[in-house]
Amino acid sequence: MTPTTWVPHAAGSGHDVDHLPYGVFTTSDEPPRVGTRIGDHVLDLAAAARATAPSYVALLDAASLNPLMAAGPETWSAVRAWVTDLLLDPAQEAALSLLPVDDVTLRLPFEVGDYVDYYASEHHATNVGRIFRPDGDALLPNWKHLPVGYHGRSGSVVVSGTAIHRPAGQRKAPTEDAPTFGPCLRLDIEAELGFVVGRALPFGERASTADFATTVFGVTGVNDWSARDIQAWEYVPLGPNLAKSFATTVGAWVTPLAALEAARVPLPGQEPAVLPYLQEEGPGGYDVEVEVELNGTVVARPPYRTMYWSPAQMLAHLTVNGASLRVGDLYASGTISGPEKDQRGSFLELSWGGREPFAVGDAERTFLEDGDEVVLRYSAPTATGRLTLGEVRGTILPTR
Amino acid sequence: MTPTTWVPHAAGSGHDVDHLPYGVFTTSDEPPRVGTRIGDHVLDLAAAARATAPSYVALLDAASLNPLMAAGPETWSAVRAWVTDLLLDPAQEAALSLLPVDDVTLRLPFEVGDYVDYYASEHHATNVGRIFRPDGDALLPNWKHLPVGYHGRSGSVVVSGTAIHRPAGQRKAPTEDAPTFGPCLRLDIEAELGFVVGRALPFGERASTADFATTVFGVTGVNDWSARDIQAWEYVPLGPNLAKSFATTVGAWVTPLAALEAARVPLPGQEPAVLPYLQEEGPGGYDVEVEVELNGTVVARPPYRTMYWSPAQMLAHLTVNGASLRVGDLYASGTISGPEKDQRGSFLELSWGGREPFAVGDAERTFLEDGDEVVLRYSAPTATGRLTLGEVRGTILPTR
Repeated sequence: MTPTTWVPHAAGSGHDVDHLPYGVFTTSDEPPRVGTRIGDHVLDLAAAARATAPSYVALLDAASLNPLMAAGPETWSAVRAWVTDLLLDPAQEAALSLLPVDDVTLRLPFEVGDYVDYYASEHHATNVGRIFRPDGDALLPNWKHLPVGYHGRSGSVVVSGTAIHRPAGQRKAPTEDAPTFGPCLRLDIEAELGFVVGRALPFGERASTADFATTVFGVTGVNDWSARDIQAWEYVPLGPNLAKSFATTVGAWVTPLAALEAARVPLPGQEPAVLPYLQEEGPGGYDVEVEVELNGTVVARPPYRTMYWSPAQMLAHLTVNGASLRVGDLYASGTISGPEKDQRGSFLELSWGGREPFAVGDAERTFLEDGDEVVLRYSAPTATGRLTLGEVRGTILPTR
Repeated sequence: MTPTTWVPHAAGSGHDVDHLPYGVFTTSDEPPRVGTRIGDHVLDLAAAARATAPSYVALLDAASLNPLMAAGPETWSAVRAWVTDLLLDPAQEAALSLLPVDDVTLRLPFEVGDYVDYYASEHHATNVGRIFRPDGDALLPNWKHLPVGYHGRSGSVVVSGTAIHRPAGQRKAPTEDAPTFGPCLRLDIEAELGFVVGRALPFGERASTADFATTVFGVTGVNDWSARDIQAWEYVPLGPNLAKSFATTVGAWVTPLAALEAARVPLPGQEPAVLPYLQEEGPGGYDVEVEVELNGTVVARPPYRTMYWSPAQMLAHLTVNGASLRVGDLYASGTISGPEKDQRGSFLELSWGGREPFAVGDAERTFLEDGDEVVLRYSAPTATGRLTLGEVRGTILPTR
């Protein structure tokens, strides 16, 4: 049974003491610093360190999680134990600064190094293959041998709540003679899960699948906004570029891997067997449930446990060629889609390439309209209940 | 006529006062700081600022060019004028610290934000198309409508002289049933020119082609090392990833755009006409000559003036969707190849997909062997002579 915190309304809230995600916040009168969410409050960890653990001040009185992450996995464990103890000991209440979460401004929680986006859902890759290549094989030959991925634009990673201007760009429908320029006509989401690297790896070395828990600091939701008409025209032969580079939204809270231990589940199964560098001991998946909410209506519930490739495999693949890692590198799963129609994590799939509008309350949608608000919500089991990852929210504004 | 500097042997050296590239260097006893190259010497600009221009100390007593770049284009001009005056006035000699270039260690000159690699040579794209798709159209339909590009791994950008371990990875020849893992069998170079962004652009705004000279700080050589066997297997449908992400080498010196004014030339011509956001006033090309040297023998001389897309067009395309820019973002041209066989900037093209070994002195090559040393050299006309950009050097070590 989870011990009880003295913070009111935290028990069973999704932000109990078995969660303790990290974020960076400001208040009107003080600079950015690290906090954790407990119930409906933010505990100011910079202030807590000054009061009770001075050696942590340099890690937590910081404008990003990067100093804390760079301190390494033993420190991650020690800081988590210290915060847990503070929140379980009522005698600490007087010394701590607890702020209502609605009274703080949350910032992008980490400085993003490189951002790699994978394509790890078999259901998503199969759906996309069927939509775009109805007469060919749904999965390309490499897909079950390696986690296919590409580099996104790290400078375009923004925090939940940031408004997204509809991108403009070139597109050409197959029926048109020449490309035209204008606001994206098929603006989409991709509901994903992201993994934040907390440990640097030198140039030329490799992280194995077994290094996952000491290399990845934590998890955040990701919405990889996608301009499908721009993508269809630009993407050969070097992959998506401007269709993705205008914005990627991440949650304001990074949930430590340690909080997701009870959510670990086996992968659905890999056949053919993967090469040795991609093999993994123990359960590689995570039972994270996702809700895609559009203008207040849930339009899909993608289950992360159905993903084909594990995050540890994605990490091993990322570095097998000697690529270095930096603290703050982000890699994401790619769109999460399950086998059912209402488990698809993109409008491209929910509307089957725009040909089958789907219901959103009393309205219908194929792709996003100006003014639409998307919220991705994520939850996962803990030993005694559920935790709620930081939501990933964004509203579409017209093209500037 | 170029005025004469008091620094010996600088006149006509490729590093005269009309060049003045910026780099970051260390000596055994002092931390990294900004310098400029003049003749065979490095002028310590941090020391020069302390002696003669204290307001520049914060920009130049720095471990990267980012503070100088972030100061903006008016400061770029002012600092260049100040350095020029110092080097023309013999009375300054006593106050300045001039170090033999062989006595300093050169560092990666800027903190790389995002790294985007284009594919802007028509000859290169046509050659690659013919090699990989002998029965199809050499150029894909989008190629003449937009500068095709993708994001590379910015954390893998290293400075000239860094040894490159041969990457390992998955590959599968068409004749094989399943992929295998091992050291890259077709390791290649890509001789490119890179453009370093010196001005941030907020999320949602656009840089036009006319903003090029106030947005791009300078130019450096780039070798985008490429593992062709890994690339051929992994690249569908999301583009190159591990085939490129192990290392990209840049020169140690960034040549300011102002030094390349005399090298500006018109593009070869664009037909069909490009969309308005890609249109450009004035000459968009640069007459930079490149030499690809392998183990001391020049194996190709790619001419940058033959590139189809201009760097100003690449910049406008990069931001037309509202993607932000950060100081230190790097974008590169893609492989520079001219129309002639000995003007091809990759071994893939020089050996026509590995089928036609080419002579290297008394030896032959298709792709790189362990121990090979590649040096890319770049030069361009000035008003009265030529300047030499920083070389881009790398030696291949065995897979770790």
